[in-house]
Amino acid sequence: MNPAAATSPMIETLVQLLGEGAVLTADADRAGYEKGWRYGEGRALAVVRPRSSAEVARVLAIAAEHGVPVNPIGANTGLVGASNPDATGEQLLLSLERLSKRIVIDPVDRTVRVDGGVTLSALNAALAEHGLFFPIDLGADPQIGGMVATNTGGTRLLRYGAVRENLLGVEVVLPDGTLVDRMSQLVKDNTGLDWKQLFVGTFGSFGIVTGAVLKVQPLPKQTVTAWVGVNQAQAVLNLLARFERASGGTLSAFEVLSADALDITIRHAANLEQPFDASELPAYAVLVELSTTLEAELLDLDAVLLSTLEAHFEEAEDELADVFPMAPAVAWNLRHHISESLALEGVVLALDIAVPRARMAAFSAAMRAQLASSHPQVRVCDFGHWGDGGSHFNLVWPQDATDDHAALKLELQQLVYDTVVRDYAGSYSAEHGVGPHNQRFYDAYTPDALKAAARALKQHFDPDRRLGRVPLDGTPE
Amino acid sequence: MNPAAATSPMIETLVQLLGEGAVLTADADRAGYEKGWRYGEGRALAVVRPRSSAEVARVLAIAAEHGVPVNPIGANTGLVGASNPDATGEQLLLSLERLSKRIVIDPVDRTVRVDGGVTLSALNAALAEHGLFFPIDLGADPQIGGMVATNTGGTRLLRYGAVRENLLGVEVVLPDGTLVDRMSQLVKDNTGLDWKQLFVGTFGSFGIVTGAVLKVQPLPKQTVTAWVGVNQAQAVLNLLARFERASGGTLSAFEVLSADALDITIRHAANLEQPFDASELPAYAVLVELSTTLEAELLDLDAVLLSTLEAHFEEAEDELADVFPMAPAVAWNLRHHISESLALEGVVLALDIAVPRARMAAFSAAMRAQLASSHPQVRVCDFGHWGDGGSHFNLVWPQDATDDHAALKLELQQLVYDTVVRDYAGSYSAEHGVGPHNQRFYDAYTPDALKAAARALKQHFDPDRRLGRVPLDGTPE
Repeated sequence: MNPAAATSPMIETLVQLLGEGAVLTADADRAGYEKGWRYGEGRALAVVRPRSSAEVARVLAIAAEHGVPVNPIGANTGLVGASNPDATGEQLLLSLERLSKRIVIDPVDRTVRVDGGVTLSALNAALAEHGLFFPIDLGADPQIGGMVATNTGGTRLLRYGAVRENLLGVEVVLPDGTLVDRMSQLVKDNTGLDWKQLFVGTFGSFGIVTGAVLKVQPLPKQTVTAWVGVNQAQAVLNLLARFERASGGTLSAFEVLSADALDITIRHAANLEQPFDASELPAYAVLVELSTTLEAELLDLDAVLLSTLEAHFEEAEDELADVFPMAPAVAWNLRHHISESLALEGVVLALDIAVPRARMAAFSAAMRAQLASSHPQVRVCDFGHWGDGGSHFNLVWPQDATDDHAALKLELQQLVYDTVVRDYAGSYSAEHGVGPHNQRFYDAYTPDALKAAARALKQHFDPDRRLGRVPLDGTPE
Repeated sequence: MNPAAATSPMIETLVQLLGEGAVLTADADRAGYEKGWRYGEGRALAVVRPRSSAEVARVLAIAAEHGVPVNPIGANTGLVGASNPDATGEQLLLSLERLSKRIVIDPVDRTVRVDGGVTLSALNAALAEHGLFFPIDLGADPQIGGMVATNTGGTRLLRYGAVRENLLGVEVVLPDGTLVDRMSQLVKDNTGLDWKQLFVGTFGSFGIVTGAVLKVQPLPKQTVTAWVGVNQAQAVLNLLARFERASGGTLSAFEVLSADALDITIRHAANLEQPFDASELPAYAVLVELSTTLEAELLDLDAVLLSTLEAHFEEAEDELADVFPMAPAVAWNLRHHISESLALEGVVLALDIAVPRARMAAFSAAMRAQLASSHPQVRVCDFGHWGDGGSHFNLVWPQDATDDHAALKLELQQLVYDTVVRDYAGSYSAEHGVGPHNQRFYDAYTPDALKAAARALKQHFDPDRRLGRVPLDGTPE
């Protein structure tokens, strides 16, 4: 048990209010909440698990009375350490996992009202019964409140947008315990400042998202996929532009693997059904997915896929190496084995970057050239969502390449981010967000005017600076 | 000439900086800027017309030095009086009309960088050369900066979203003259508070939008339309749900006219080609538009339209009165003649409301019943964008129905808005925004928590409260 918890009058109050099972103080009980999925590790005063928004409000009011800092945690699937406690042992970790009862679907409105602790998979299971889905497609199974606080993106962002574009209303609890219900179902409501935007992608800095109203989409009736070998980076962008203009909005994913990422994946996932010849890999492999709610008798989706590729082949034959139409489940299987394959190959530095997508080819070439000269031991294994300018710009090197992997990681992070942000007007965090893991880059790259606005909001919502892990106004010196 | 301008040292400074033609002080020169399109009338100290963002910044810095209030004005097409000066004669009106040079299109990125004073029509003319368009479809021709500050919607919002969903970056000038360039082209950039959101739909309360980066769309290759007669309000929603689920994302407009609006329009626009029998009008007439970038050899769009209607007819024959496929230009002509026809019929109170769209039928019936009993002289001529829950809930009565039309307007406004906001969780301003015309409703309906956040931002950006016409923290008592 954290000794501070044993003597904390606040913990006693919380136990009285919520019952013992709702307040975890034992080391073993806290452990799963204290360490992040990829980054983030600390020690919590306790983990509190309220069962309703009203209870969240009570917890925050009590924490405010006692001056105790609070950090919200959802499914703990974030990749920047924002949901884990810091090292002080003084933060109360507020888990939303029990806020998972309400999933109210309105099929005509095409909206759903959900509690913040509902998981994405639970939401989609409920929606499927109405022929609907929430179109944020991720490798993890986060909770909705965390998704709002992170503004998660995923592989179908180019078609449907991120959480921000699919969010109509929020319920939040402010640091002083005020519950604000703005669970609007309105698609249109042009009445000034859009309140919900303050809580999207701000990681609980201003309040805790306890509920959301989401726009949802009809499930596709047809989905087709193909892997396409492409000979150069610019050709990938040309192919993307063609699909966007010729496929009638059916393009739902456009995922790209560089040759090195592909090489490693097919070597380590050797049993995987995949179309490429390992001895002759293209510069880039592209997974194209089209999907539609049109019945096959109205639209032959395979014909859209093949005619678009044929047209490209006719006009720019040298750009395409090969085309492999495949069943979606098989095609995606290759895509989903990249990260684990890279990890088997060596030390991996995963960089979640974005550039204006028209500049992706130029960025990729420049970065490769720079790294080949400065760090020849590093392989560039980039893959990702070129359709929306996002790339998992992953760098891999052998375990024995250096004695100090941590130092090399920092050096490479700085090098790549500087190029992305300063030379390509890009982002050092395309979709993972901001947390302790990358706070120092936030501090370095964020314009002063933005930090100053964030400071004004922080001062307004949380003058004692007790909530969250992310100082959006910059880390105090 | 406004006498205050003759003696103002600031005006002198502005003339020296920008030249005489850039500072309009004569009554006749100011007149066109002082009166709004539908509401809004006042008197400006002068109208200043800078030619660049840098000049806007200089003007705001000079106004700050002199403590002079400033209001931005775009194309003056807004409908809530927000771009016109107040009655004091002391406000400097800052017109963005000369910031209209830059339209930089990136076809692969599918983005465009524009100056704030570029008009929507100029933008679309430039985009058309690349087979692209900006999908905000309006009856007016506003400037881009004003569109951002208003978050304009329009008839294709159900497909493409409002300005907010199509905006990637902004350039703003803050009240103290600081120019902040966040002209990002990034689709993904999850690095904390989304700065641009503070300037979308906030009507220049926090800063003046001098530039924007917009996402743009490929122009459709096919468009088909039909007018559909529908027997009851709920059937309109059922038909909408069917099109959304069965038309593969091709639905690009779903406009609805009530029988009274239709009756008046076809009587006053008698030469209009229109399909309905005036002696036997359906309860609602629906304009359905489908459009796609797919070539006709891949998708027969007429077949999608007709098969969807046929399926509806088979399952719910009693819901549909009649179906009239028509050429888009002809079909839209009827839709575009509504407002002017209503004005010819009598006194019009135009109410721009939204409700959760699944509740539109219930709202419409309840409101009609209430008005029939309380105000039998009033005809409900509602029409609008049911696809996104928006309705121009227009009320029409004879000129001789009352001696005091202004009083009746206020009474009806209050009655309808109260029902919309309090009973149907709706909005008193779906797309027109907030301005002096409806500020008192903003004051009445906006939650305190939201006003308090707006106050914190106002205090941060504009502590002297010199910018804009809209007190988002509520009108001071």
